Amino acid sequence: MQSRRERALAIAEAAGAGAIVVAHPSAVTWLTGYAPEIETGPSAFALSAIAVLAAGGTPVLVVSEDEADAAAATGCEVAVYPGFGIGPVDPVGAAARTLAGVIDSPSIAIDAGTLPAALAEGHDWIDVGGELAKARAVKDPDEIELIRAAIAVCDEGQRAARAHATAGISELDLWMVVRGAMERAAQTRLPVLADLVSGQRTTDVGGPPTTRVLAEGNLVLCDLVPRVAGYWGDSCATFAIGEPSAAARVAHARARSTLEEVIAAVRPGAIAGELDALARAHLEFPHHTGHGLGTGWHEEPRIIPGSTTVLEEGMVVAIEPGSYEGVGVRVEQVVLVTSEGCEVLSQHDLTL
Amino acid sequence: MQSRRERALAIAEAAGAGAIVVAHPSAVTWLTGYAPEIETGPSAFALSAIAVLAAGGTPVLVVSEDEADAAAATGCEVAVYPGFGIGPVDPVGAAARTLAGVIDSPSIAIDAGTLPAALAEGHDWIDVGGELAKARAVKDPDEIELIRAAIAVCDEGQRAARAHATAGISELDLWMVVRGAMERAAQTRLPVLADLVSGQRTTDVGGPPTTRVLAEGNLVLCDLVPRVAGYWGDSCATFAIGEPSAAARVAHARARSTLEEVIAAVRPGAIAGELDALARAHLEFPHHTGHGLGTGWHEEPRIIPGSTTVLEEGMVVAIEPGSYEGVGVRVEQVVLVTSEGCEVLSQHDLTL
Repeated sequence: MQSRRERALAIAEAAGAGAIVVAHPSAVTWLTGYAPEIETGPSAFALSAIAVLAAGGTPVLVVSEDEADAAAATGCEVAVYPGFGIGPVDPVGAAARTLAGVIDSPSIAIDAGTLPAALAEGHDWIDVGGELAKARAVKDPDEIELIRAAIAVCDEGQRAARAHATAGISELDLWMVVRGAMERAAQTRLPVLADLVSGQRTTDVGGPPTTRVLAEGNLVLCDLVPRVAGYWGDSCATFAIGEPSAAARVAHARARSTLEEVIAAVRPGAIAGELDALARAHLEFPHHTGHGLGTGWHEEPRIIPGSTTVLEEGMVVAIEPGSYEGVGVRVEQVVLVTSEGCEVLSQHDLTL
Repeated sequence: MQSRRERALAIAEAAGAGAIVVAHPSAVTWLTGYAPEIETGPSAFALSAIAVLAAGGTPVLVVSEDEADAAAATGCEVAVYPGFGIGPVDPVGAAARTLAGVIDSPSIAIDAGTLPAALAEGHDWIDVGGELAKARAVKDPDEIELIRAAIAVCDEGQRAARAHATAGISELDLWMVVRGAMERAAQTRLPVLADLVSGQRTTDVGGPPTTRVLAEGNLVLCDLVPRVAGYWGDSCATFAIGEPSAAARVAHARARSTLEEVIAAVRPGAIAGELDALARAHLEFPHHTGHGLGTGWHEEPRIIPGSTTVLEEGMVVAIEPGSYEGVGVRVEQVVLVTSEGCEVLSQHDLTL
């Protein structure tokens, strides 16, 4: 089995390129282990971190000096240009020159949907972003451990959501407790994508927490997607404050049994589109049945209608059937495809 | 006085381009009012939102359908391509084709440090990212109101930091309370850049909150930079848990008087490098004396050694002198340059 760097280099070679140059944070983390800060958007004083990989070499991270220490901690080589400081800066020119000094190949394979035009300019480039994204689907053993750790953080968040969701608390206040529980578990700040909706808002499928106050009988739909050490976890539960309605009970029971049925069918050789059809035989929902995750919160394999993608051992897949008619419910677990079937990584409470 | 869109178009015209095409979130927000989600990095199913502006036209936002409603709420035109959903996606190709359909000009002026290579390809482009960033320095009246609102959120965060910083709480737990106070004030989740360091960590200049537990006599350095409705606030205070040391008192008093002295010198016509020198006459610190802010958390004018930038009415500048020898202290307020001098927008407590 090739390692992820070997698979990446094979993609470059097939494209006739001597090196890979990527800027999407998910691709950078995948190739180097370096997880760039993402929570506050791009800096004014630096471009996004760039990863360069050529055959026979260690990956090189091209970053501003502000990121140099964190980048070097990965064991990759680091090529640095000036960043935040007290002198004049020219991040675009400096990054482009630094990158050019690292590339020793007449042609490069890039993720053209992310790599800035200024960095591609002057190079003979070809876009392999889609191929690289596909190559991320099967995880290396070290990646699986990182995903396990991220899922454990999700579990803590889900525990806190249930423990603190009571009539009278706002979605936003509940969110703060949930995020806090995850950050306390990880012992650091975390980027977190999340849906936290309650009551009638559950029929919106998702959305950020608002000042809406939870009331007796409400459902709470909580979907938590934190990034921990560069790898994303994912989990969703829907539960009731007090007594749920009969309609909520029916919808939730159907979502849970559907989740179980899909997971029971996950194994090497399973077809993504067939897994999707299993879910849609029982429930109507406007989103995918599932998706891979890793250095990206949504990755291949996508579990969507008609997909001919074949599941392989080492893929990590979130399965998340739901329904949103009248009341919104969704349940989600992440599984690792094993040689015989799959292992459920999520351990959070799925009861209503 | 030209509006910001007029200034942007003048830059394009001077570059010989018929339209501006930008991807940096700060530039997109500045031109359109649309504040893209940034907290969890780029999507797998869509490129970053693109803003297109041509003479005589309304700005056009090129976004995936997932962002279409939020983008349309700005009043800009919206050109949409498929996003997250249940069908196959080709975000790079779809975004490039949608953008090409919007551009009606043989040449375009772009922010080449951010706009992806795949979107620039096939167009005759010129990089005006630096010029656009400079043009953001003087704020339009609507921008000033948005910055005031963001600073008010900072004030709430600083109030919470002081109220909850007691011996025995960890930096991370304090952080959750502070972030919560800001999000409660804004009634929504917020992207937040922040330093929260205590005790000996204050000499690191900054850094994220950790599990370090605050102790009696510790200093807490709290620098809060939230984005509220697309505009960033900024504020810093340093305060003691219980009785500060004599060294902390001296350093803090010097930082405060330096802040006052620099702010007293802020007016139209003031030279950025001279303001910087005023601060460095009293204190040694490795970072800028100050910076503009708006749709970016660091903008022009940079208050750094040797800068010949001239301050103008309508600029918004954060001034943040500090010192980090033995103990770390920093105090920061944001001011609006007025016709006669400046107005201090920050209202948080600066005492030790």
